[in-house]
Amino acid sequence: MSTATILARIQALAAISEDHHCLTRTFGSMAFMKASQVILGWMQEAGLSARIDNIGNVRGRLISKNPHARTLVFASHFDTVVNAGKWDGPLGILMALDVVSSLEMDLPFHIEVVAFCDEEGVRFHTTYLGSKVLTGAFDRQQLEIQDAGGTTLGDAIRLMGGSPELLAADQIPPAQWLGYFEIHIEQGPVLYEKHIPVAIVTGIAGQQRSQLVFKGMAGHAGTVPMTMRQDALCCAAECIVMVEQWAMQHRDKVVATVGTLQVVHGASNVIPGEVVCSLDVRGEHIDTTELSHLLTAICEKRNISFEWNIVQETRPVKCNEELTGVLENAIQSTGIEIVKLVSGAGHDAVAVSAIAPVCMLFVRCFKGISHHPLEDVEPADIEASLQVAHAFIQQLIR
Amino acid sequence: MSTATILARIQALAAISEDHHCLTRTFGSMAFMKASQVILGWMQEAGLSARIDNIGNVRGRLISKNPHARTLVFASHFDTVVNAGKWDGPLGILMALDVVSSLEMDLPFHIEVVAFCDEEGVRFHTTYLGSKVLTGAFDRQQLEIQDAGGTTLGDAIRLMGGSPELLAADQIPPAQWLGYFEIHIEQGPVLYEKHIPVAIVTGIAGQQRSQLVFKGMAGHAGTVPMTMRQDALCCAAECIVMVEQWAMQHRDKVVATVGTLQVVHGASNVIPGEVVCSLDVRGEHIDTTELSHLLTAICEKRNISFEWNIVQETRPVKCNEELTGVLENAIQSTGIEIVKLVSGAGHDAVAVSAIAPVCMLFVRCFKGISHHPLEDVEPADIEASLQVAHAFIQQLIR
Repeated sequence: MSTATILARIQALAAISEDHHCLTRTFGSMAFMKASQVILGWMQEAGLSARIDNIGNVRGRLISKNPHARTLVFASHFDTVVNAGKWDGPLGILMALDVVSSLEMDLPFHIEVVAFCDEEGVRFHTTYLGSKVLTGAFDRQQLEIQDAGGTTLGDAIRLMGGSPELLAADQIPPAQWLGYFEIHIEQGPVLYEKHIPVAIVTGIAGQQRSQLVFKGMAGHAGTVPMTMRQDALCCAAECIVMVEQWAMQHRDKVVATVGTLQVVHGASNVIPGEVVCSLDVRGEHIDTTELSHLLTAICEKRNISFEWNIVQETRPVKCNEELTGVLENAIQSTGIEIVKLVSGAGHDAVAVSAIAPVCMLFVRCFKGISHHPLEDVEPADIEASLQVAHAFIQQLIR
Repeated sequence: MSTATILARIQALAAISEDHHCLTRTFGSMAFMKASQVILGWMQEAGLSARIDNIGNVRGRLISKNPHARTLVFASHFDTVVNAGKWDGPLGILMALDVVSSLEMDLPFHIEVVAFCDEEGVRFHTTYLGSKVLTGAFDRQQLEIQDAGGTTLGDAIRLMGGSPELLAADQIPPAQWLGYFEIHIEQGPVLYEKHIPVAIVTGIAGQQRSQLVFKGMAGHAGTVPMTMRQDALCCAAECIVMVEQWAMQHRDKVVATVGTLQVVHGASNVIPGEVVCSLDVRGEHIDTTELSHLLTAICEKRNISFEWNIVQETRPVKCNEELTGVLENAIQSTGIEIVKLVSGAGHDAVAVSAIAPVCMLFVRCFKGISHHPLEDVEPADIEASLQVAHAFIQQLIR
């Protein structure tokens, strides 16, 4: 294998889509099934003992003769968002295959290359299905979740040929894990701006997703004087500017985004009475107490009622220091400058970190663009990442 | 007639709705047809020569014996918005009927009480259909406009028993107008806050409706650092706060409202790439040059592309000074303090002002609430308004 093979395989997977106009490959779709067969074939070609497990992960093992061998999982995902780029996920799988296929001697540990089935969570709105099965953390109640068409996750698994009853048997028990390594595109602009091909991921940001509700008083846009208004949108707007200011002040620790906003019963000639918006805050350590006070003060000043409803919280994850140290040595051995980043996006490493040491390598992507057809990676950066990954495995072997 | 009769008739009309759960009576609906028959009956009861014209206006004339008599039109509308209050429109019609039915002597001018058919414009999105026919300004091309169900205005007129070919004959020619008088609820909170029952309307605000478009760069909410963002919503939010500040600074002249806002392809985990919002500016004189510079500066600072598309502009209307002077004398004769207001809402007087002198009296409404079931008027304010209206007609007779 080589960079050229990886590029060809990226194109091959990009052509397997449930939509003719763009790349979309969600969990359990026909395109997904086809891609899993293609990846299975590549794993067999690489000499791995390969299979598709009951949730739909494609898994290939390089088995050590060492009777005390534990397993290093080398993984990424092959499901995509809607109208996706072709690098997010597949790149890490193809890198892992390249590294493992080049290993000729017997290793002191097993390596399992895993192509995870559901990192994006587009179909069932639940992420990390594959890595949760792999770590034994899968919640069987989720089998009842329905997709937009009313199909349950349990039925989707059966339609793919899996057996929901056997999911528990697909786990790698905690004691058998040596560690977890994932290569993924950065999905942000830091490496692109710094002109550096790879970065060490020190952790994965925690995330707090909230719904903010502002309630004022609707009124006629022509007849209520400016001084007598309780305009929910003006209040929300002042709060959005404040969210941005607060995040800028704490920019080394957090990012904050208001991504959706609805004016309830909005009309161009009606003063907004109610506004609902989302708030997404991420960081290595999230404390929104100060922000909450700032927003509450704005709403009180304007006589607008305010609710902050937390919808979802995920803890930040720290990558394992020892494994990350090995990765840092590997990067140093290639002469690339060390950059350390916190991942703002979630990854399967989050699920795995609950039971095993994890580490991750980020690869520079064009302008930081991701989840978009313009997503791109330079061949030279694939080459550099492969060198780092090879060096990482060699250092683990020693 | 009396305040009690007016209250009873307000209730009677409020019960004629196309929706059982709320009051909705749009142009040409069954409820609209029924209400027009009820009003026709009341006009006949008041001794007027009454008919329904081809567009659906209900018109009752008190005819003078004076061979040189011109016509004073005393009017309001009986169509409503969706989920309307019961006072917006009908109050003015019932007041006019009360005043006219109490006139016993022969007048030096004709009075025509008109219940206009389409002031709100809910069904065909075109306002003032009735007053445009009355003034001869109806544009026959509008006969082709379709409602949401695909029925043209021409067909709607025919279904109501009217004849599109005869619309031109329903006008009162310009030379025959003495003037126009309309009583209407304020639909704003000024009188309610001032504790005064009625106000003189000095003019009807002009209106500029625009679409503002902000284009930045979408991105992953977790991976793009705060310093590298081009967030279209943060920019729009800063602009909305600026619109409010600008309107507050010029609050004696204008009101400005952002009533709708869409985040294009918005998602809680995506940095907004594009935002579209409405801007409604109203006043006796509208000049948004300064505001445009302020918003452009914000967008340039943030590297966001900005479009300001004007969707609709209506000129401000000045009420006739002479008629309004008569109305002021009438109010003074009742001992009520004089309050002068500019109407921020549109009225049929806008259409009539193109060919005849207009004046309007506003009546206090509960908390300024309108276009809402909570819309309400106190009996004492109906009484006060009736006194003013009677005095106004008496002064015109002299």
